[in-house]
Amino acid sequence: MGSPIASSALVESVLAGQMSAIARLITHAEVGGEVCQDALAEIYRHTGKAHIVGITGVPGSGKSALVARLCKMIRGARRRVGVIAIDPSSPFSGGSILGDRIRMNELVEDTGVFIRSMATRGALGGLARAALSGVDILDAAGYDVVLIETVGVGQDEVDVVQAVHTTVVVSAPGLGDDVQAIKAGVLEIADIHVVSKCDRPDANKTITDLKMMLQMGEQPLQENNWKVPLISTSAVSGEGIQELLSIIDGHLEALKLSGDLQIRRRRIAETRLLKSAENILRDEFERQQEGKISELTNRMMSGNIHPYAAAQILLNQVRGELEL
Amino acid sequence: MGSPIASSALVESVLAGQMSAIARLITHAEVGGEVCQDALAEIYRHTGKAHIVGITGVPGSGKSALVARLCKMIRGARRRVGVIAIDPSSPFSGGSILGDRIRMNELVEDTGVFIRSMATRGALGGLARAALSGVDILDAAGYDVVLIETVGVGQDEVDVVQAVHTTVVVSAPGLGDDVQAIKAGVLEIADIHVVSKCDRPDANKTITDLKMMLQMGEQPLQENNWKVPLISTSAVSGEGIQELLSIIDGHLEALKLSGDLQIRRRRIAETRLLKSAENILRDEFERQQEGKISELTNRMMSGNIHPYAAAQILLNQVRGELEL
Repeated sequence: MGSPIASSALVESVLAGQMSAIARLITHAEVGGEVCQDALAEIYRHTGKAHIVGITGVPGSGKSALVARLCKMIRGARRRVGVIAIDPSSPFSGGSILGDRIRMNELVEDTGVFIRSMATRGALGGLARAALSGVDILDAAGYDVVLIETVGVGQDEVDVVQAVHTTVVVSAPGLGDDVQAIKAGVLEIADIHVVSKCDRPDANKTITDLKMMLQMGEQPLQENNWKVPLISTSAVSGEGIQELLSIIDGHLEALKLSGDLQIRRRRIAETRLLKSAENILRDEFERQQEGKISELTNRMMSGNIHPYAAAQILLNQVRGELEL
Repeated sequence: MGSPIASSALVESVLAGQMSAIARLITHAEVGGEVCQDALAEIYRHTGKAHIVGITGVPGSGKSALVARLCKMIRGARRRVGVIAIDPSSPFSGGSILGDRIRMNELVEDTGVFIRSMATRGALGGLARAALSGVDILDAAGYDVVLIETVGVGQDEVDVVQAVHTTVVVSAPGLGDDVQAIKAGVLEIADIHVVSKCDRPDANKTITDLKMMLQMGEQPLQENNWKVPLISTSAVSGEGIQELLSIIDGHLEALKLSGDLQIRRRRIAETRLLKSAENILRDEFERQQEGKISELTNRMMSGNIHPYAAAQILLNQVRGELEL
């Protein structure tokens, strides 16, 4: 992909749905770099057809098993499905997620399914951008449904979740109070609630607790009168998976009918525009103002100037230059 | 704190160590706003004395219990200790963290200990800033050690961890593979490793696994020749807590001896300067360029211009204006 010609050949292969080309372009998107921008710009022109679904839940909530089940169900209906799993592993822990990945492997022989893990390590800040580029690529490559699996904590995750059409929040029985507390922060972003592992004896308590928490929050109806449903599923028995898929599909229909799909798509576009502008500004700023930054850091260290005040001085200096 | 006079009186009370004043100023820092900047700028001049220690670990790793034990141990040595706990709870889950907080309550009668929880909810992006302001306030108020407790996932958390002198990463036996995988991403930032809950029968396996993971990563010695230690602790029996505190103190001494404390402090100052500049720029940008942003969003929607390309058009338009 060193030259524009190679880049455009790669894009054509992606648009034709070639899995090796898709994998290569996603890798380019992860690594970043200028060459890749042309390809991604071309890809973006072919997006807008897929249903983008976020699957969010704390570690241990059984997201991956649920995603694997959903993939099979979607394939059963002859639709193509892509998955971007934002994976908090690092080279240190290569082995420790195999439990989940092995379940995924049942799907790898099927060309109608594309699954890609992205590590958070080394990509902090750039992760959301890479994940959203991955979604664009799968969308343009003709996958009907694109699932993004995330743990739903932190800014990167929020950026990703803000860029989906339908958000599924997964809770599970048997997790500690501390874990459940983390989950609470994302409850309100749900379009659909799932209590997974409903084959477990303590699942009923989790469902009751969750219903109580949702009422306590006095959740209003969403703008489009969508009443957020709560479904219990079991990746072991397959219970509830078909129902979940029907509801995911139903949510897209509801968004279309109410006109909210267009509103969500607009919000996604605006958010991505602003994030991109911010990234470009930050890169240029750090490159061009190195001397000033060093000098102001010295002043912060010696005179204990507050970072905010120092930042204002820095920006005033930069503006002074621009106005000359 | 509406007027400069009230603000400076509040700062004086904070510097005198009044707990109610400290609590009020931290609340102001969480809420943000212009008035607060003067107070925080004044506070910042009095910082630089405390040892800032990050305590990072996944949900369920027993961080809070460990922090409570450490607080008691630090108090036993007649030193004052402040805690900022970045708490992933929300109003939905007000009750679910009581288990941990109750242990903290044993400490609340002691004026030499100040503990403050900050919620992630509603503060995303601004959380790191508020937490670091909280640390400044506790530092200026004369606490000898300031502990920051975080789950160590996401950009906010990384921003916070980048602003400490000593990072303790807590692992625990009995968490699922998925949870351990999350932890792996933060392993490499550790100055000190702790395996908590060492009273549990499966703790030895966790210690063995962790040692293996650390070797697999071929961890080099840190720049200052600090050899990252691994300590096992039990908040139940108190085992290892004294040793942990000695090692935390020893890490600060090592940083001072090698000159690396100054390097870390400089890096912290520079990071905070850049973050502040970024925040100011973003706020101004979104306020002033509203019309242009809306127009470009339309073009993205109709012509499928890629966010990056649209961002470049936006920035070129803004620059064109500046140069006129």
